[in-house]
Amino acid sequence: MRHRKILIASLLAGTSSIVNAVDKSPTPIDGISYPSGWQKWASISVSHRTDNNTLRVILGNQIAVKAARSGKTNPWPDGTILGKVVWKDTKLENWKAATTSGELVHTEFMLKDTKKYTETYGWGWARWIGINQKPFNKGAQVCTSCHTRVKNRDWVFTNPAPFPKMK
Amino acid sequence: MRHRKILIASLLAGTSSIVNAVDKSPTPIDGISYPSGWQKWASISVSHRTDNNTLRVILGNQIAVKAARSGKTNPWPDGTILGKVVWKDTKLENWKAATTSGELVHTEFMLKDTKKYTETYGWGWARWIGINQKPFNKGAQVCTSCHTRVKNRDWVFTNPAPFPKMK
Repeated sequence: MRHRKILIASLLAGTSSIVNAVDKSPTPIDGISYPSGWQKWASISVSHRTDNNTLRVILGNQIAVKAARSGKTNPWPDGTILGKVVWKDTKLENWKAATTSGELVHTEFMLKDTKKYTETYGWGWARWIGINQKPFNKGAQVCTSCHTRVKNRDWVFTNPAPFPKMK
Repeated sequence: MRHRKILIASLLAGTSSIVNAVDKSPTPIDGISYPSGWQKWASISVSHRTDNNTLRVILGNQIAVKAARSGKTNPWPDGTILGKVVWKDTKLENWKAATTSGELVHTEFMLKDTKKYTETYGWGWARWIGINQKPFNKGAQVCTSCHTRVKNRDWVFTNPAPFPKMK
């Protein structure tokens, strides 16, 4: 019975970590501040990776969303911030053939500023790990080594999804 | 050469349909108006269905997002609007093991109003089809027949994704 209580307490703790846990703004990375309020940003696209079993939403600040929805993304305008929120691909309880966003793996951001980020192809690159958003401090090269293959797309993998025009 | 020009014109037409094409607000369904400005709403979760090969983002109005982020979703509060945007699961050009949102299949909305929607379990149900958002007029029963299995979750399949607390 005691074990059961502990188990229930653990499960509840797990649930509350969803609501979570960042008491102050996460630590900047290489001079890049944690983008404020990205949790309210609009969506640009969704993706699924089978090589690491993750589901992602790609969000953007107002400049990014305006560019995405109007197809003006090569290059993306200065001031763009793209955010990628990465979760473990997890079975959905009530629909056998569906998966959904489980544990938060990390958030990643690309910040376009062609004057500031001259040494990293016009973008600032940053990643914060897990629900507590610990800074990833291994340098932008970890990001750009994969993104090089899309350098002719202004270094961005994302295809903006088709959205109905807003009325 | 002429065919090539026609092909290019067709491709361009395809691209512009991404930016698209709803000239006036889509037709209401069973007295439910098209939710205004949902394209700017924040995300609640992401899902992937392998039975019909679609990727989805689940969005919400402010009431819904506040409820989702604080774990208060059974029941969801009156005033909640949940939006599900459904795209064909499509290969991502530059990453072999990734898929992303292709053609827009439809948008679906659940509107919580326990006084107004007494005959459909406290929710209004609506779906608009394709990039031109044509109304789906086959009645709420098409929705509720599947959602019955989650009636103990206030009729909602979606698990809100874990988001870091906002700072």
